[in-house]
Amino acid sequence: MNHSKNSRNAAYYAEGVLRGDIAVLSRAITLAESTNTANREMAREIIRRCGPSGKQTFRLGITGVPGVGKSTFIETFGLHVRQKGQRLAVLTVDPTSAKSKGSILGDKTRMQKLSAFEDVYIRPSPSAGALGGVTRVTYETIVLCEAAGFDYVIVETVGVGQSEVGVSRITDFFLLLMLAGAGDELQGIKRGIMEMADALVITKADSGNEKKAAAARAEYSRAIRLFQPHDSGWQPPVLVCSALADTGISEIDEMITKFRNLTMKDGFFAEHRRRQQLEIFREALREAVLTGFNDRFNVEERLRQLDAARQQFDPYAEVAKALRAAGF
Amino acid sequence: MNHSKNSRNAAYYAEGVLRGDIAVLSRAITLAESTNTANREMAREIIRRCGPSGKQTFRLGITGVPGVGKSTFIETFGLHVRQKGQRLAVLTVDPTSAKSKGSILGDKTRMQKLSAFEDVYIRPSPSAGALGGVTRVTYETIVLCEAAGFDYVIVETVGVGQSEVGVSRITDFFLLLMLAGAGDELQGIKRGIMEMADALVITKADSGNEKKAAAARAEYSRAIRLFQPHDSGWQPPVLVCSALADTGISEIDEMITKFRNLTMKDGFFAEHRRRQQLEIFREALREAVLTGFNDRFNVEERLRQLDAARQQFDPYAEVAKALRAAGF
Repeated sequence: MNHSKNSRNAAYYAEGVLRGDIAVLSRAITLAESTNTANREMAREIIRRCGPSGKQTFRLGITGVPGVGKSTFIETFGLHVRQKGQRLAVLTVDPTSAKSKGSILGDKTRMQKLSAFEDVYIRPSPSAGALGGVTRVTYETIVLCEAAGFDYVIVETVGVGQSEVGVSRITDFFLLLMLAGAGDELQGIKRGIMEMADALVITKADSGNEKKAAAARAEYSRAIRLFQPHDSGWQPPVLVCSALADTGISEIDEMITKFRNLTMKDGFFAEHRRRQQLEIFREALREAVLTGFNDRFNVEERLRQLDAARQQFDPYAEVAKALRAAGF
Repeated sequence: MNHSKNSRNAAYYAEGVLRGDIAVLSRAITLAESTNTANREMAREIIRRCGPSGKQTFRLGITGVPGVGKSTFIETFGLHVRQKGQRLAVLTVDPTSAKSKGSILGDKTRMQKLSAFEDVYIRPSPSAGALGGVTRVTYETIVLCEAAGFDYVIVETVGVGQSEVGVSRITDFFLLLMLAGAGDELQGIKRGIMEMADALVITKADSGNEKKAAAARAEYSRAIRLFQPHDSGWQPPVLVCSALADTGISEIDEMITKFRNLTMKDGFFAEHRRRQQLEIFREALREAVLTGFNDRFNVEERLRQLDAARQQFDPYAEVAKALRAAGF
C-alpha cells in the first residue's frame, strides 16, 4: 500500500464528504464496510480528516421485531423531522440480508416518499458479517453522514438479536417499536432490549386496532416502571401511533425533542456520547485483540479437536500450548 | 530457568505427589499458587507428569454467605464422607483473607475434628488475587489432590462474589447453603448462584429454629421450581440440616450419592467434566490473551487518559493506535 497515495485519496474523499457530495459519501461508507484492510484504514483516515462535526447532531436508534412496521414508521416520522428543517440520513436494515428478515421488496419500494427527497440520504446498514462488527461500520457511517451535513441520523435495527446493544451504544435515543399483540404482551422482545429503550411506541393503532393499542400502552407502562431508572433520570414513556394514518407521530417527535433539550441543557447529552466512546473503545479493543489472536491460532478449531477426542485433558496446559503456538 | 533442572524437580514432585506424600503435595500446590512464572510452569509440568487420576473422584463445591455455617457443615459432612471410606481433601476459604470474610480464628480452630485425622487434607484456597485467577489455582489444586490419592474433594467458597461461577465449573456437584432468614428469603444470595446450585440446604435447623427452616425449605422449593431445568435432568432438591446436632447430614450425603450414581450411569458425569474442560480452556485462553495484551498496552491507563481529557474522540482510531502501540 502506497501511503502517500492513500493520503491523497483520503484527502479527496474527506473534501468531498465535507462538501456534502452524496456520491463521495456513499463511496467512503463502502470503504468502511470493505473486507479489505487498506480500504478500512482509508475510511478511518477520511474520518480523521473530516474531524468532529461542528453542528449539533442527533442519533436516533429505532428497533422492533419484523412486522412491527419499522419502515412505515421511519417514513412517516422522517417526513416530520425533515419538515422541521433537519437534514435526515436513514441507515436501514438491509432488505437483501436473510438474517435481518427485512422486507424482500428492496429499498426502492421501502420508504418511497422519503427517498423521493434529494436532501434525505437512505443507506442500508451493513450486514451482520461485517469485519470488526456491525457497530464499528454503523458508527463510522453515522460520523461520515454527519460530516456530510446530515444532522439527524436514524439507525434502524431488527429487535431480535445482539445488534441492538451495539446500536444503543452509538445513538443518543433508543426507540423500541412494539405491536399490541394478543396474549403475553412482553413476549417476542427481549427484556434487556426493553430496559435499554428510552421510549416504547405501540404501532398500528388504526383500522379498529385502537383499543388493543391503548391496552398494550397501559400494560407496558406498568412493566417498564419496574425497570432500573436511566442514568439520565429520564423516565421512558410509552406512546401510541399509526404511521399509516399519521396519528401520534408528531407527539413522538415532540417527546424526543423534549429529551434532547433536557439532556443538552443538563450536560447529559455530551457526557453520554463521551461515555459511549469510552465503552466502544474498550469493547472494540477486546474484540480486536481476540480476533487478532484467532488469526494466529484458530481457537474454535482447537476446541473442535479437543471435543472430538472425547477425552479428559488439562485445560490450562492447553492454554499454555495455544499461547506458545501463537507466539504470544 | 534451567529446563532440565526444572524437569528433574518436576519428576521429584510428581513422584512424591503420586506416593501421597502430603508435604510434597503441599509444596506442589504452593508452586501452582506462586506469582513466579517458572514456579507455575513447574506446577503444570508436575500435573502433566502425574497424569489423569485412575480412580473415580468426586468434586463437591459448597457455597453460602458468611454466617451460614459453612465450616461447621463441612466438618460434620466431612466426617460422614470419611466414615464411608473416602479419602477427603477440603479446600477452605482462606480465613486470613479480608476479602473472603472467613472466620478470623485461623484454620487450626476451624474444622477441628476433621483436621485431627491424618488421612484428611485441609488446605486454604488461594486468595482472590491469584495470578491467572482463583479458578486455575483451585482446579490445579484439585487435580494435584486427586493425584495424591484423595478421591473426594470439597471446595468451599463464599457465596457473595464471582468465584462461585468459577467453582461451579470445576466441580461435579454444587451445593448452596442458606439461612432461614426473616423477611425476603431470596435476599442475600444472587439469583444466578441459586440457579447454578444442584441442591439447596437450609442450615442451623436447631435450637428452636426448626419451624423457620421448614418454612424456608417450602419457600425455596417453590422458587427453584421456576428455574431452568439442569442439563443433567436433575431437579435440585431443598434439604434441611443441623450440623451441630448432626441431623439431616446423612440425607444430604445420600442425595449427593444418588446424583453421583445417576449421572455416572447415564454418562452425564464424564460428559460434564469434559464440557467443563472445554469451557475452562475457552475462558482461560480469552483471559490470558487479554492479560497478555494488557502487559504490552495498559488499556485501563489509556481509558483514564481519554476520560480525563473530557473530549469527544474516535474510539476506532484509538483501537488502531492501541494495536499498533502493542505491536499486535
